[in-house]
Amino acid sequence: MRAFYGIELASPLMLGTAQYPSPAILAEAFRHSGASVATVSLRREAGAGQDFWALIRDLGVRVLPNTAGCHTAKEAVTTAHMARELFDTRWIKLEVIGHSDTLQPDPFGLVEAARILCDDGFEVFPYTTEDLVLADRLVEAGCRVLMPWGAPIGSGLGLNNPYGLRSLRAHFPDVALVVDAGLGLPSQAAEAMQLGYDAVLLNTAVARAGDPVAMARAFGLAAEAGRLAHAADPMEPRDMAAPSTPVIGKAWLT
Amino acid sequence: MRAFYGIELASPLMLGTAQYPSPAILAEAFRHSGASVATVSLRREAGAGQDFWALIRDLGVRVLPNTAGCHTAKEAVTTAHMARELFDTRWIKLEVIGHSDTLQPDPFGLVEAARILCDDGFEVFPYTTEDLVLADRLVEAGCRVLMPWGAPIGSGLGLNNPYGLRSLRAHFPDVALVVDAGLGLPSQAAEAMQLGYDAVLLNTAVARAGDPVAMARAFGLAAEAGRLAHAADPMEPRDMAAPSTPVIGKAWLT
Amino acid sequence: MRAFYGIELASPLMLGTAQYPSPAILAEAFRHSGASVATVSLRREAGAGQDFWALIRDLGVRVLPNTAGCHTAKEAVTTAHMARELFDTRWIKLEVIGHSDTLQPDPFGLVEAARILCDDGFEVFPYTTEDLVLADRLVEAGCRVLMPWGAPIGSGLGLNNPYGLRSLRAHFPDVALVVDAGLGLPSQAAEAMQLGYDAVLLNTAVARAGDPVAMARAFGLAAEAGRLAHAADPMEPRDMAAPSTPVIGKAWLT
Amino acid sequence: MRAFYGIELASPLMLGTAQYPSPAILAEAFRHSGASVATVSLRREAGAGQDFWALIRDLGVRVLPNTAGCHTAKEAVTTAHMARELFDTRWIKLEVIGHSDTLQPDPFGLVEAARILCDDGFEVFPYTTEDLVLADRLVEAGCRVLMPWGAPIGSGLGLNNPYGLRSLRAHFPDVALVVDAGLGLPSQAAEAMQLGYDAVLLNTAVARAGDPVAMARAFGLAAEAGRLAHAADPMEPRDMAAPSTPVIGKAWLT
Repeated sequence: MRAFYGIELASPLMLGTAQYPSPAILAEAFRHSGASVATVSLRREAGAGQDFWALIRDLGVRVLPNTAGCHTAKEAVTTAHMARELFDTRWIKLEVIGHSDTLQPDPFGLVEAARILCDDGFEVFPYTTEDLVLADRLVEAGCRVLMPWGAPIGSGLGLNNPYGLRSLRAHFPDVALVVDAGLGLPSQAAEAMQLGYDAVLLNTAVARAGDPVAMARAFGLAAEAGRLAHAADPMEPRDMAAPSTPVIGKAWLT
Repeated sequence: MRAFYGIELASPLMLGTAQYPSPAILAEAFRHSGASVATVSLRREAGAGQDFWALIRDLGVRVLPNTAGCHTAKEAVTTAHMARELFDTRWIKLEVIGHSDTLQPDPFGLVEAARILCDDGFEVFPYTTEDLVLADRLVEAGCRVLMPWGAPIGSGLGLNNPYGLRSLRAHFPDVALVVDAGLGLPSQAAEAMQLGYDAVLLNTAVARAGDPVAMARAFGLAAEAGRLAHAADPMEPRDMAAPSTPVIGKAWLT
Repeated sequence: MRAFYGIELASPLMLGTAQYPSPAILAEAFRHSGASVATVSLRREAGAGQDFWALIRDLGVRVLPNTAGCHTAKEAVTTAHMARELFDTRWIKLEVIGHSDTLQPDPFGLVEAARILCDDGFEVFPYTTEDLVLADRLVEAGCRVLMPWGAPIGSGLGLNNPYGLRSLRAHFPDVALVVDAGLGLPSQAAEAMQLGYDAVLLNTAVARAGDPVAMARAFGLAAEAGRLAHAADPMEPRDMAAPSTPVIGKAWLT
Repeated sequence: MRAFYGIELASPLMLGTAQYPSPAILAEAFRHSGASVATVSLRREAGAGQDFWALIRDLGVRVLPNTAGCHTAKEAVTTAHMARELFDTRWIKLEVIGHSDTLQPDPFGLVEAARILCDDGFEVFPYTTEDLVLADRLVEAGCRVLMPWGAPIGSGLGLNNPYGLRSLRAHFPDVALVVDAGLGLPSQAAEAMQLGYDAVLLNTAVARAGDPVAMARAFGLAAEAGRLAHAADPMEPRDMAAPSTPVIGKAWLT
C-alpha cells in the first residue's frame, strides 16, 4: 500500500460518517470495520455539534474532512480552509460537484481548486473520475492521492468502468489511488483492491444496510482480502479447464 | 449458514489440498485461511503416504474425501467406499467427470452414483452444475448439500453463470449450497457468498498463487465478508445517483 | 452456416408464432424479418384453427413444430407424432420442460425422448442447456442440431452463460447450433452468431415489442450481421490502445 | 435519429478511411456498409494524394474531416481550418489527444478548441469521453453533436462504460450522440444504438478484419438493427421465466 502523504494506513478501508441510524451505530460500525480513516463533512452554515466532534475523536481514526456539497472551486476552497481550522489537519477530500443529480466531479473546477489548495499547503485527496488527462492535471497541481469514483455517489452500482480504473492504475504507479463512491457490496471493494488500488472509501453501503455494523465489518474484511490478493500474485485465468486435484502419494508426497 | 449434514462449520471456506509448492506451505495456508474443511483425493492405485495423512490430520479441519478423477458412477462408488474406510467419515465429495478437458460433471453418472451412495449411508456432496432439474434429482436421491461449479475446475474464471447460481439458491432454500471450482480471486468468493451460498470450495487459486499463504488468508476473509454482507441486508443499487454525505449538525446531530 | 438435416437456410433467424397482437402483425413481422423457419406449437387438446394453418403456410417459410408444454418424454413423443402427421414434416423441436416456472429443459426426459424420436425417423431439434455431457448424449441419440438456451424462455435476459455457449461451439464443430430462448435484444442475437452459432430462435422479444414488425426486422438484420462478422475474421481486441487514423498521402496512397 | 447540424443521415453508420488493405477494398467496404459518412484525416505535413480525394468523392457519402494526431487545441484549430478549405465543409471531427498511448481525448484542450471552432462557424463533432460536465461545456461552446468513445481508439473492446453512455444519453436528449472509437464487433454497434445513440463511428474493426467488405456490411446491418430496436420499444427483461409459446387454436385463433 502506497503512503498517503507520508502516512501509512493500517487498513485500506475509509468510511464516511453520514446516514447512520444513530451515533452509537456509527461508532460500532467503525470499530468493527477496522477503518483507518473517517471522512467528515462541513458546510459553511454548519453550527456543528460538539457531540459529533467528540464522537469522531473517539473513533481513534484519522479524520479526512471533505468539501461535499460544493459546486464551485471557490466554495470548495473556502470550505477547505474552514475544515483545516476546525479539524486541525492539512488533509482535505476535495469534492467539486458538477451535476446535482449524478454528483459527478467537475473536472474543470476540480483542477482549479486543487491548484489553489496544493499551493496553500493542503494535502489534497481529489474526488475525480477515471480520466487520465484529468489525473495528469491533478498530479501536476500537486496531488499525491487520487480518488476516482466507482459509480455515482450513493448508487451502490460498483465499478462501472473497470477498464478505466485499471488504466489509471497502470499510468500512475506512484500515486496512491482510492476508489471513492459507488460501492454497494464487499465483493466490489475486493475487486477494486485486486486492481491494485490502495484503499476504498464508502459510506451509503454501510450506513444504509439493514445491519450497518455487520456490513462495516464485511467491507473491512473484503478490502483487506483484495489487498492481500493483489500482492499475492494471483493465478492467470485459463480459458481451458485443467485438473486441480492431485493423486495422493504422487508428486511431492512419496 | 445452513448445516452440512448436521454439522455447523465455523468458516464458509473449504480448501483443496493439491498442487501446493510444499507440505509446509499447504499447512501454513490452511492455518491462515481459517478453512473449516479440507478436500482430499484418493484413487484406487494410490499407495498413499503416511506423511500426508499426518499432515492433514494436524490441520485440525474436517476432511472431505473426493472421488476426483472418476469418470463413471461405478468408479466413483468404489472410490467412495475406499475413502470411507481410509478417512473414517461418511462425507464424500462426489465427482463424476463427464469430459476429460473441461472436467465438467456428468449429470447422468452423478445421479446414478448419488443414489447408490446415499442409499449406502454416505453423506454426499455432489460436484454438479447449476442445472435445476439435475439438482432436483440429486435432492431426491438424498443429497442435502449441492456443490455447483462457478467455472471449470482450475480455470480461475469466477462465476460463469451468476443467474443460474442465483436461481439455484432461490429454488433450494433448505439445501446447503457450495460454489465449487472455477474461483480465481477473493472477490469472486465474496460474490458467491453474497448470492446466499453457504460456502465456497477452491484449490488452484490458492495453491498456484505466487504467495499461497497470503492468498489463502485473502479467500478466508472474502468468504466471510460475503457471508456477513448477505446476512446484513445490503442496500439496493440505485440507477439514479444520490448524495451520501450529510451536513454536520443536521439530521440526528443537533 | 451448417445445414439443418441437409437443409441450407437462407437466413439464420427462426421465429416463434405466439403472442403477436394479431395474425396480420405476425405475418408482417415474418415478412420483414426474413426468417427462414417458423416454430409452431401443438398440444393434444388442440382443436386447431384452419385459419392459422393457412396463415403459416402463406409465410413461405419452413415449419418447425414443437412440443411446447410437454413435461415428460412420453408426452413429448406423442405430441411429436401428432405434429408429424399434421404438418407433414420430420422436423420436430423437442421441448421437455423440467420446471414449471423457469421452463428449463429436463436433461433426463430430453435424452429419453430424443432417442425414441431419432429412432423413429424424426429429425430432432432439442431445446437443451449448454451442458456438454447432455449434448454428447443428444448427439449419440442421433440429433444433428442442438438448441441451447440463452436464458429462460420469455425472460429477454440474453446470453446468461457466454462461456458455456462458446465451449459448446468448440466441442461440437460439426453440429448445427441454435441459441433458442432468452433473447431480448438484437445485439444479443448478433452476439450468439458471433460465437459461431448457426441460427437464433426467438419469439417473445418480437411479439411483445411495442412494434413487432420493426423488431422482427431488427432481429433479422442483427442475426445476419453476427453471421457475417463471425465469418469475416474479426480483429482481436487489444488491451493497449493504438492509433487507427492514417495520414493522407502516406502508406498505400503515395 | 436526430439530425447532424440539420442533416438527416440515411444510415447510422460512419466509417473511417484508414488502414484498409487497398483503396479498392476501402471503396467496396463503403458500398457494402451503406455508411453515410466517411471520416478522413489531414495533417499539416500532408502532401496528399489526388487519387485519394477522387476515391473519397466517388464514395458518394458525406465527408467528415478530422484532426487526428493533434495534441493541442492550437494544432487542432489549424488543422480544422486546412480541412475546411480542402474539403469544402464546415463539419469537423475534433480530436485533441491527451495521451499518446491510450489516445484518450484531452478534456481541457477539447473545450478550448471547440469554443474557437464553433465561434468560427465550424460544425464541430468532438471526440470526447462520457463525462457529463465535459459534455455540458462542449454544448455551451456550441457543439450540437457529441462523440463519446466506447473504448480506446483501435482497441476493439466495445463499450467500456455502458452506464456512463446511458447517462449521457439521458442528460442530453436533444443532442445527436455518436459512439466513436473502440468498437470491435457488430453486436457492440447494435448495443450502442439500442441505448438510443444516433450513430456509431468506427474504422479499425472493419479495416483490419480478415474480410473488411463483409465486416463493413455486418456493421451496417447491426447499426440499423440497433436503431430499429430502440425505436420499437423492446420488451422489459424479466427475472422470472415465463412461457412464450401459445397453444394453437387458443387465444386469438379460435
